[in-house]
Amino acid sequence: MKVIALGEPMVELNALTPGPLRYVNYFEKHVAGSEVNYCIALSRLGHRCSLIARVGNDEFGKNIIEWLRGTGVETSKIKVDSSSYTAVFFIQRHFPIPYESESFYYRKFSAGSKLSPEDIEEDFVKQADLVHSTGITLAISDTARDAVTKAFATAKRKSFDTNIRLKLWSPEKARETIMRLLKEGVEVLITDKDDAKILVNESEPEKIKKAFMDYCKILVLKMGKEGAAVFKEEESYYIKGYNVPVEDVTGAGDSLGGTFLGLYLNGYSLDKALKYGVAASALNVMIRGDNENIPFLEEIERFIKSIER
Amino acid sequence: MKVIALGEPMVELNALTPGPLRYVNYFEKHVAGSEVNYCIALSRLGHRCSLIARVGNDEFGKNIIEWLRGTGVETSKIKVDSSSYTAVFFIQRHFPIPYESESFYYRKFSAGSKLSPEDIEEDFVKQADLVHSTGITLAISDTARDAVTKAFATAKRKSFDTNIRLKLWSPEKARETIMRLLKEGVEVLITDKDDAKILVNESEPEKIKKAFMDYCKILVLKMGKEGAAVFKEEESYYIKGYNVPVEDVTGAGDSLGGTFLGLYLNGYSLDKALKYGVAASALNVMIRGDNENIPFLEEIERFIKSIER
Amino acid sequence: MKVIALGEPMVELNALTPGPLRYVNYFEKHVAGSEVNYCIALSRLGHRCSLIARVGNDEFGKNIIEWLRGTGVETSKIKVDSSSYTAVFFIQRHFPIPYESESFYYRKFSAGSKLSPEDIEEDFVKQADLVHSTGITLAISDTARDAVTKAFATAKRKSFDTNIRLKLWSPEKARETIMRLLKEGVEVLITDKDDAKILVNESEPEKIKKAFMDYCKILVLKMGKEGAAVFKEEESYYIKGYNVPVEDVTGAGDSLGGTFLGLYLNGYSLDKALKYGVAASALNVMIRGDNENIPFLEEIERFIKSIER
Amino acid sequence: MKVIALGEPMVELNALTPGPLRYVNYFEKHVAGSEVNYCIALSRLGHRCSLIARVGNDEFGKNIIEWLRGTGVETSKIKVDSSSYTAVFFIQRHFPIPYESESFYYRKFSAGSKLSPEDIEEDFVKQADLVHSTGITLAISDTARDAVTKAFATAKRKSFDTNIRLKLWSPEKARETIMRLLKEGVEVLITDKDDAKILVNESEPEKIKKAFMDYCKILVLKMGKEGAAVFKEEESYYIKGYNVPVEDVTGAGDSLGGTFLGLYLNGYSLDKALKYGVAASALNVMIRGDNENIPFLEEIERFIKSIER
Amino acid sequence: MKVIALGEPMVELNALTPGPLRYVNYFEKHVAGSEVNYCIALSRLGHRCSLIARVGNDEFGKNIIEWLRGTGVETSKIKVDSSSYTAVFFIQRHFPIPYESESFYYRKFSAGSKLSPEDIEEDFVKQADLVHSTGITLAISDTARDAVTKAFATAKRKSFDTNIRLKLWSPEKARETIMRLLKEGVEVLITDKDDAKILVNESEPEKIKKAFMDYCKILVLKMGKEGAAVFKEEESYYIKGYNVPVEDVTGAGDSLGGTFLGLYLNGYSLDKALKYGVAASALNVMIRGDNENIPFLEEIERFIKSIER
Amino acid sequence: MKVIALGEPMVELNALTPGPLRYVNYFEKHVAGSEVNYCIALSRLGHRCSLIARVGNDEFGKNIIEWLRGTGVETSKIKVDSSSYTAVFFIQRHFPIPYESESFYYRKFSAGSKLSPEDIEEDFVKQADLVHSTGITLAISDTARDAVTKAFATAKRKSFDTNIRLKLWSPEKARETIMRLLKEGVEVLITDKDDAKILVNESEPEKIKKAFMDYCKILVLKMGKEGAAVFKEEESYYIKGYNVPVEDVTGAGDSLGGTFLGLYLNGYSLDKALKYGVAASALNVMIRGDNENIPFLEEIERFIKSIER
Repeated sequence: MKVIALGEPMVELNALTPGPLRYVNYFEKHVAGSEVNYCIALSRLGHRCSLIARVGNDEFGKNIIEWLRGTGVETSKIKVDSSSYTAVFFIQRHFPIPYESESFYYRKFSAGSKLSPEDIEEDFVKQADLVHSTGITLAISDTARDAVTKAFATAKRKSFDTNIRLKLWSPEKARETIMRLLKEGVEVLITDKDDAKILVNESEPEKIKKAFMDYCKILVLKMGKEGAAVFKEEESYYIKGYNVPVEDVTGAGDSLGGTFLGLYLNGYSLDKALKYGVAASALNVMIRGDNENIPFLEEIERFIKSIER
Repeated sequence: MKVIALGEPMVELNALTPGPLRYVNYFEKHVAGSEVNYCIALSRLGHRCSLIARVGNDEFGKNIIEWLRGTGVETSKIKVDSSSYTAVFFIQRHFPIPYESESFYYRKFSAGSKLSPEDIEEDFVKQADLVHSTGITLAISDTARDAVTKAFATAKRKSFDTNIRLKLWSPEKARETIMRLLKEGVEVLITDKDDAKILVNESEPEKIKKAFMDYCKILVLKMGKEGAAVFKEEESYYIKGYNVPVEDVTGAGDSLGGTFLGLYLNGYSLDKALKYGVAASALNVMIRGDNENIPFLEEIERFIKSIER
Repeated sequence: MKVIALGEPMVELNALTPGPLRYVNYFEKHVAGSEVNYCIALSRLGHRCSLIARVGNDEFGKNIIEWLRGTGVETSKIKVDSSSYTAVFFIQRHFPIPYESESFYYRKFSAGSKLSPEDIEEDFVKQADLVHSTGITLAISDTARDAVTKAFATAKRKSFDTNIRLKLWSPEKARETIMRLLKEGVEVLITDKDDAKILVNESEPEKIKKAFMDYCKILVLKMGKEGAAVFKEEESYYIKGYNVPVEDVTGAGDSLGGTFLGLYLNGYSLDKALKYGVAASALNVMIRGDNENIPFLEEIERFIKSIER
Repeated sequence: MKVIALGEPMVELNALTPGPLRYVNYFEKHVAGSEVNYCIALSRLGHRCSLIARVGNDEFGKNIIEWLRGTGVETSKIKVDSSSYTAVFFIQRHFPIPYESESFYYRKFSAGSKLSPEDIEEDFVKQADLVHSTGITLAISDTARDAVTKAFATAKRKSFDTNIRLKLWSPEKARETIMRLLKEGVEVLITDKDDAKILVNESEPEKIKKAFMDYCKILVLKMGKEGAAVFKEEESYYIKGYNVPVEDVTGAGDSLGGTFLGLYLNGYSLDKALKYGVAASALNVMIRGDNENIPFLEEIERFIKSIER
Repeated sequence: MKVIALGEPMVELNALTPGPLRYVNYFEKHVAGSEVNYCIALSRLGHRCSLIARVGNDEFGKNIIEWLRGTGVETSKIKVDSSSYTAVFFIQRHFPIPYESESFYYRKFSAGSKLSPEDIEEDFVKQADLVHSTGITLAISDTARDAVTKAFATAKRKSFDTNIRLKLWSPEKARETIMRLLKEGVEVLITDKDDAKILVNESEPEKIKKAFMDYCKILVLKMGKEGAAVFKEEESYYIKGYNVPVEDVTGAGDSLGGTFLGLYLNGYSLDKALKYGVAASALNVMIRGDNENIPFLEEIERFIKSIER
Repeated sequence: MKVIALGEPMVELNALTPGPLRYVNYFEKHVAGSEVNYCIALSRLGHRCSLIARVGNDEFGKNIIEWLRGTGVETSKIKVDSSSYTAVFFIQRHFPIPYESESFYYRKFSAGSKLSPEDIEEDFVKQADLVHSTGITLAISDTARDAVTKAFATAKRKSFDTNIRLKLWSPEKARETIMRLLKEGVEVLITDKDDAKILVNESEPEKIKKAFMDYCKILVLKMGKEGAAVFKEEESYYIKGYNVPVEDVTGAGDSLGGTFLGLYLNGYSLDKALKYGVAASALNVMIRGDNENIPFLEEIERFIKSIER
């Protein structure tokens, strides 16, 4: 299918060793960003995904375009904006909390945050089967938020990952902005417990379901190493997380969400799509880099088969 | 004791990071090959092991000879064959299946696969206490298979590891060739459940034992992280695997088999030899490289003592 | 312009440290191949270059396609051939000859060498402005050679780099095959002194010119660190090489040839195109990797300006 | 508070990869030493800690001073002793015992071991709130032992970590020397089961408590991955260890002891100080390097909060 | 002597390999900034240098303070500003111009750029022997520029390095701002030909001297690999650059300027101070990192002696 | 021929990056030692070289034996001495003097320095064609010196490299000890200008020749990057050094001396042997590691041929 995603691609500098960044001597470069990861997951599953975005006219901007084009993501709607720079962020791993990662952003006034409604061509959006974005794009700037609003207003079908980053905005601002967008409804909504607490003040899966089902047809609840759940009307499925060594959890949720979404669009049953998504997220936490381990279908199947035998 | 092994030494290029090889930027070089690993295990336990093999007249061939000579393996019967190249293989780790490794071979028509009956000097074989080979050597070429057949026909005592690699031959070809060789009987047979399924169509340890005991005096059944079993007439012993972090499982079975064989030849009881073999294989999976962690006796004892206290 | 190149893309494993490969512990992966480098040089200069080639159905094949697509090379004519593997080669640097590199190929019977006339669609070739290949493609297999012959027979304009690799064929075979192809004439011929000695038994630039001018309109003579010359009827220009630190010379000739060709097709004067090509080759020897340093026009101009001020 | 520590700072060369050092190709440099780690833990918790020590007049000596000064440890009492060299040691990890590390010292006759009573200025010691040392300083030389004796004789309050290193002295010598020092009593005594077995011939926590309580007011018993206990008159608290991936356990005990001591001096309750100490030691085993992961208070609190939610 | 410097300390991410940053996979972290380098050079030569600056309340801010404190720079006047982040920059080396480096800044609205007159305590400035700053500090923000103006108005003696960075401001803005500051006169002025062209529109050393001598007592003209010159009334000395392998030229000018300044303050003759400064800059270009190779006096003397024998 | 060398093998920790060791984070391990290098050079040229030496009963001792055995050096006379440790040393490169290296030894009271006359079996020495040692072995201990004296007294033919290391002894001690040994005469004496200044107080090649010719038949004078000279009665030959990039000069003199010696023993003319030795030393300075680049004959010939064409 044809999918459009709106978001900010970034260059990730991942600590080569765990511990506080002040003592990390080497950083490994990757291309990242939640919507980037969704696009790659969708491409791996056979969809044609176009990212609407801006990058700076610099080496990191070129890097992002080459990487995305290489993986098969459609890059013709990525504008090179000479007025600003491409965002970067640094990842600190396993400190002070083992198995968790922390991002330090250098993205204020970045080219990516200048995404604006003028970047949204209505004809282009209309011909797409689905439009996807996340809470991050709503948070990075008012113009980026308006771009999402405009695209969602035009889109045939919509999916949305709440992805609240408290380094980018306050819980109040996040709630107000996201809930306003959701009022129009989306087909697939992806969230997690922390976001649900902020958005609908619920922590229990069934209550989260109840709170969100007015806004979407399908709700995916990511639960980290405990796995995930998916809800649709009367259906609910829980999939337990797989136990693997954790190098960096950054991007694991996108790997889950993107793989679920891609398989759902391919007509998979909800529980199978979710199980495959959870497998994709297990593979993702085993490496540094947000999307290198996002699997092709055949790879997920080998993973699942190996686990089940 | 004096042991002879027949097989193909190779240069291993091990991915420095887990994940699909297309995104791996650095590879670490090691010397590998199942029979190489057996030779090193036997050397570490005090045996004099000579490898009959061929390498190319190139840097990697020199590398193999220096490495083996350094570890104490006897290299005078390794021919440098200028007509071909030394085989290499690449290892992809933890993808798409966590905790497992996959090998990509560049060994077709390699110098090592040109091993042939003319490389087998009968007098040299006769003076050895034991001759060892594996299913890999049977698979790499007809001449290599004939070399094993010739050596086994002359050998005083024989050991054999089934080691079926489905990238090298079909299950049918493997079954036919290995079972023909085994018809003559070997003293020690090492195998695992996947190989047993192919060779004798059994999956349960006791049934595998029954199926193989006509062909050997002692049967070692490797069971990966679950450990291993050894059978001899009425005796059977199970040893549970040790729980250690897995970097690369390649070579773990050889470490187990070679350590068992070396201790067995030194007169250890079957259960003790097996327990030490399982310890050796636990150490092996913790590193990249097939044989750097194959332990000396004193090292195994420190490992065992630490676990048991 | 639209350009088609025929050749074998490979994965390069470049020694991280200089010296004999037996003592090199780490290798750095790159995508390489003479025609790959030409395609990237042409893409950087604004041409649309399509590579006709085969890769294996493996990680390295995927790697090559992603890399080329990323850089903007057209990959729709690269067949994934499941019957064989993607070629690799290892580079030894600065030993035993300082400032030089040596390649060790694992490409026999590779997917790339199975390139054949059936891969050449005449309509596709006819719509291209220029078809390019090299002596390497002639050497890797009879079918690959026939593919080049077929494509050249159909092409509007042709360019050819003699690129004789004595690890792939004998001087006699090289001479016979290349001269037969050249009999039909090419517009741009790129060669060096060693190749000229083999092909036309001449070593002096002016004599080399005389010997080759029956076969081409424009002759480029690469002379390593001494620079290069270009000849066309009465015109001859020499450009001195730039003095830079040498990491790995592999691919430098392609960087020169591809940059010259791209600028020539863009209408640059011969001397300016050659000077820029020599600059591109100077940048290329400063890094490991065959094509990462192949410059965009603006980068060459910054280089030249800096040298000339 | 003002704390003084006496001991030998060293440069640590930590194996970049696990396994026997003969096959390790790269080593990572860190600044280490038990008392160094205690000082850094105390500094991180707001105390002013001065290390009394000697280093050689060489690069590694300068390295130690810059590192300590950088972390906020007071270095004015570190003498640069031109008559000898700065000690180094190598760390072998996970071999032959998984999850454990082994140190190989190059510290005989080192500058650090020349620490002597003349380095102890009584006025300086008197103004301190607490003086700390360990069994290592007692072991490295007679003059170092006498320096500790002299400092302890003058100190207001004292803490001591038994830290017996059997590569430095015999169990008998260790027992005799340490017990003689303890006869004068210390406020806080830190030990572990192996040391207790040597010193008071007990292995059970409650019996160890009984045996040591004559010599101290507070006893901390480190129990590796099982956690730790603290005793004071009628009080006893046990804290379970946290389950984290183990890179290198070297320095974990110091991280525990130093963090406990720092919080105890800040007036924390024994059980809270111990729990935080155990958290600090969990962070420490996740990296190479003895003290880079020693946490600030806020970092411990984030760790604890994450575990407890 | 007591010196005060005003400027922005940054974290530098230096490309581990040369070539365009889009293809660089690893970056090496260092602490950098022109005034940081001056401070370290001065400290190495025995002066007490305090940096007045701001860093963010983050890991990189802590990194900077630990590094500076470690090297002996006085850090009590570095404010931790929680309202912003610590600046970083990336270095691309040898591309597209061999032997040169290019910086990509992430410093807009950084904590460092919030340096303001309120950070300048007049009493603290008065007790210093010399106050130093550079054109960079004038460029990063209006408040930073005003801070320099305020400090210079109070200072006993002043030195200034023009250090124009065209990524931070226009030539016109640079000329206007710097010349206004210089109107009050400084004791030591450090510049180079590119800056002189912008500031006084001269390119020839003697004319540059003439144009600047109204504004300073001593003028140092840095000339890259050609060396440097120093002027004072009737005196002029030229020192040729030393020929060394170039890894990264970033910071070489600061190494020259800081070493010259430190020795000048120590009473060295102008020509000797300059020669030592040029030696210090030669050492600096041989490594990545701005200040690790800034030498102690004894090291410069070994360098000079080795060159001269 | 059969050669015996006496000396101390060591583990070398070479700085991965140039600059002062305090800022070097990674070290690369190699096996080194002047006599080790000579043995490897001789082995590469077809001689059977046995090293008489001691190593500690530790990982580094095992490392040395495996490395030497791997390269083909005879190790049966290397004693494993459990009473001490294997020596190590650290190499600082290009600081404070570009192109030079500095060694920091940890070898006092090492196993290697315990080499003693009791290690010299006269029958073993007598059957050798030549015995070789260096000034380093004379310097490390009195017993090592006596071992050399004893071996030289028994040897058929002798060669000696003066190799004075001022970190091991004073010039006076060096002169007295070496000249006493030389009084008995050696066949081949290898020295350099610094050593000649100390030993015979001469700096000019011809005067050095005159001063030493009473003590030897053939004198080799190493002159660093300027090349080398060889003298024999009326013959003198000078060979200019080759211009190559310098990574680490450690071991270059041994590469020169060992290659010269090996070819001289093979009957090469003095000038050819010297030229090949100078080529071997050029290769050696291009890498870290003392002996990995010591060439085989065929490699030297490729080097020479490339230079001369």
